[in-house]
Amino acid sequence: MSNPVSRREFLNLLAATGGTAAVIGITSALGMIPSSASASAPELLRLSNQNRKAVILGAGISGLTVAYELTKAGYDCTVLESSHRAGGRVFTVRAGTLIDEIGNPQYCQFDDEPHMYFNAGAARIPSTHTNVLHYCKELGVDLELFINENKMAWIQDDNIMGGKPIRNAELTTNVRGFMAELMNKAMSEVELDKPFTDEEAELVLQMIHAFGDLNAEGRYTGSNRAGYASGNYVTHTVQKEMIDVRNLLRANAVRQVISDNEGETGPMLMQPVGGMDRIPAGFARQLDSRIKYKAQVLSLNLRDDGVSVEYQQDGQRQLIEADYCFNSIPSHFMNGIPNNLPTEYTQAMKYIRRGTAYKGAFQGKERFWEKEGIYGGISWTNQPIRQIWYPPHGIHKAKGVVLAAYDYGNGMAFTRMTHEQRIEAMIVQGEKVHSNYRSMVEKGVTIAWHRMNHMLGCSARWNVVTPEEEQIFSTLQHSVNGRYWLIGDQVSKHTAWMESAMQAAHVALAELDQRVRAESASA
Amino acid sequence: MSNPVSRREFLNLLAATGGTAAVIGITSALGMIPSSASASAPELLRLSNQNRKAVILGAGISGLTVAYELTKAGYDCTVLESSHRAGGRVFTVRAGTLIDEIGNPQYCQFDDEPHMYFNAGAARIPSTHTNVLHYCKELGVDLELFINENKMAWIQDDNIMGGKPIRNAELTTNVRGFMAELMNKAMSEVELDKPFTDEEAELVLQMIHAFGDLNAEGRYTGSNRAGYASGNYVTHTVQKEMIDVRNLLRANAVRQVISDNEGETGPMLMQPVGGMDRIPAGFARQLDSRIKYKAQVLSLNLRDDGVSVEYQQDGQRQLIEADYCFNSIPSHFMNGIPNNLPTEYTQAMKYIRRGTAYKGAFQGKERFWEKEGIYGGISWTNQPIRQIWYPPHGIHKAKGVVLAAYDYGNGMAFTRMTHEQRIEAMIVQGEKVHSNYRSMVEKGVTIAWHRMNHMLGCSARWNVVTPEEEQIFSTLQHSVNGRYWLIGDQVSKHTAWMESAMQAAHVALAELDQRVRAESASA
Repeated sequence: MSNPVSRREFLNLLAATGGTAAVIGITSALGMIPSSASASAPELLRLSNQNRKAVILGAGISGLTVAYELTKAGYDCTVLESSHRAGGRVFTVRAGTLIDEIGNPQYCQFDDEPHMYFNAGAARIPSTHTNVLHYCKELGVDLELFINENKMAWIQDDNIMGGKPIRNAELTTNVRGFMAELMNKAMSEVELDKPFTDEEAELVLQMIHAFGDLNAEGRYTGSNRAGYASGNYVTHTVQKEMIDVRNLLRANAVRQVISDNEGETGPMLMQPVGGMDRIPAGFARQLDSRIKYKAQVLSLNLRDDGVSVEYQQDGQRQLIEADYCFNSIPSHFMNGIPNNLPTEYTQAMKYIRRGTAYKGAFQGKERFWEKEGIYGGISWTNQPIRQIWYPPHGIHKAKGVVLAAYDYGNGMAFTRMTHEQRIEAMIVQGEKVHSNYRSMVEKGVTIAWHRMNHMLGCSARWNVVTPEEEQIFSTLQHSVNGRYWLIGDQVSKHTAWMESAMQAAHVALAELDQRVRAESASA
Repeated sequence: MSNPVSRREFLNLLAATGGTAAVIGITSALGMIPSSASASAPELLRLSNQNRKAVILGAGISGLTVAYELTKAGYDCTVLESSHRAGGRVFTVRAGTLIDEIGNPQYCQFDDEPHMYFNAGAARIPSTHTNVLHYCKELGVDLELFINENKMAWIQDDNIMGGKPIRNAELTTNVRGFMAELMNKAMSEVELDKPFTDEEAELVLQMIHAFGDLNAEGRYTGSNRAGYASGNYVTHTVQKEMIDVRNLLRANAVRQVISDNEGETGPMLMQPVGGMDRIPAGFARQLDSRIKYKAQVLSLNLRDDGVSVEYQQDGQRQLIEADYCFNSIPSHFMNGIPNNLPTEYTQAMKYIRRGTAYKGAFQGKERFWEKEGIYGGISWTNQPIRQIWYPPHGIHKAKGVVLAAYDYGNGMAFTRMTHEQRIEAMIVQGEKVHSNYRSMVEKGVTIAWHRMNHMLGCSARWNVVTPEEEQIFSTLQHSVNGRYWLIGDQVSKHTAWMESAMQAAHVALAELDQRVRAESASA
């Protein structure tokens, strides 16, 4: 791989994409934010007239957040967006949508129905993401449940069960049984650091038994939780045979699914009804003509008394003068745009590296997964597609859209392929999970985020751990001369989430507001 | 308690109401039905004319299923329902709904909006319940996700944390950490029955570390999965302090939540959009005037050539003659209705005992739980209310309905109270979970199922385990003289689920069909 990922970066990527729990011994999923936490949008000083101008570069979540809040407070805002749409990496693909990947432009051919969409970028909202939820409420974006974990979904790994998929419930139940037996043994035989009283030991044993469905002798001998081999509610049932955990250990997904329900990707998760782009659409409705599309920034000139941004729209070079600039252009792009930012600042920006990610989706000719008892959730595989997501919406309708590949943090295997090769690879790999996959899927779309026009990257890749990194982060998080701010999830400690982009926007807004309030006080 | 519950009955009740996982060492949640299982409705011989008459007693799920299938096959069906509505224990309460509890009749005062309802009976559909899902699809009942487990919901127990509620995530993360440490210790120190290879042991350790978020030394020292004490995505975060598991052991919910996500109440669950009564309403639409409401059965006379049922409607005694009778009247009721069923049969019916259950609900003046970051799911408490359920639908609307008490398998504490006392008790207990509860809830409804008119019981209480029980079950599951069948979840091995009622109906239909086919062949 030409662009190797450090271990820490990998962990960070996993954290942003639902895989952190698989990480062992070093870090953990980003946890719940404090229960007292509410939306972080600062209460901006309301201007008495519109004589303060702000130019916002990029109509992604961060830029939209800044423009929306400043407009509410009476600032005169202009958003320059280089592409034809708002949202950035919040991107819902449906009938007719252009996927503007360089070398692989496609128009989506899905059936034109409200439930037939694919969230190609951000795809789930943890219930701890209070700012996203706050704006959904404020902008009238309807939400519905979303779920990662489905015990009926499949685990497929070439290294276990001869590559045959097994139900999530069957894998996790057997693993839990093994774990409980191990704990039971430890309770019986091991001298604990802090020995328990008899009563406490009994409660621990009860907990262990409940966890693993052990029998009275403290042994795991299989459990109905794993599913029945045969029978129903009015006949005899035959329990599935237990699986020795050593037959499951080599599945990547063992570590994944035993932890996937914890932290940020555990319940509750939500999604907007009709597609994630309902969020940028909600902002854009409020901002209206303040957003200029297909407006490409050519240069940025920062002065003590303001900022000039040169841009091109409809073949015309234009100049906008503003008091303030909020810039969400990905740093790897911004480094190539002529600017007079301080050297320390541009050096810091170079530390942020661009991420890669690949997603693909198919229209199901029918909702074949529901015939397998799968309603929403994720199947895991050790194929490069990694995951298959089933839509939690449109239950029992004629068709639906499945996410057919989600190769986060790398995506290079698919990137090198043509569109047709990607489709074929997704089918061949998907067939390992659903044997009838080839006959069931059609109209595939593929998207390598690091090749998307106007982006050329997915979520930024960096960590803020060392003192040097803290210094870089601090440099980028604060304004240059009180007139210029970097925004976006790239200037957060937990990239790739809408929540991060919003919080970064709020940090910049709060700093601006402090300055404006000081000026007002001294005026 | 005047009506003690045997241990096995208690386990059965738990299984039916989402608590089985708490059971230790003896049994387990009913598992997934086989992956190949599909709807069990028999393909009935289609009659060429409507000269076969069936009378169905009771318009609950089982009676509706029988009437629907027989009508489709050309039988002339009449359903006698003693109450004013179809659905039985599938009962959605909304503005204006009569709760016909003896001694406590109420009309629900909730605001009249589509999302303002409370499923007072059946309230969730596991994705393994293929028959329920089959009929939802066939009858055009729209479904949406439902969820039990929400890591942001509260665990409150007077025996831990000084009675102060803690987040589900905080409890489970600390328990998992402890468990993983225990396993780690066992792996290090205990001679396993089947020793692992070095590679296997490493994979097991990785799994254990991932499970409990252990540090590199195999110790649990707290985890972000439990939530942050402070901080967000753009500032430093401070992890919550770990909780020694011995401080959590005495919570009933420890055993509950560590297992609640397994088996029948694990994901995926669903609910009909707009209320569970969309399912009986779907059947009733198809059956139309074939259902006679407020028709109370007075006597049943079974003959070799048919069956006569006397009933009262609008003050009139009426007689219906039919070829077949399908009876879903609860056995404790049926035993009091004059009939000529064989003694062996009526003796068997007496073995089925009536269950008890209590549910209550409030309208929230606002969706106060969402301000605490709770979107759907269940909070657990050791108070008699046991659970608080938050609606997974109507997110961010002005108001919503919370289930405020669910005392399954007993409910006697609330039964003895007046309506006003119940409301007050639910508030006092709910305040332990939500300190502002009293000011937030209004328009409470309460329902003791075992005192509901026309029912006087909740799900039947019995198990089919011993040979004697198997004999009783077999007697009740088969027809009396090929003309009379007992139906309902009462004649299933897993009472209280709609799925059980449907499967019991299908068993009866299949036996009838076999007889009709034999007659046709010999005619």
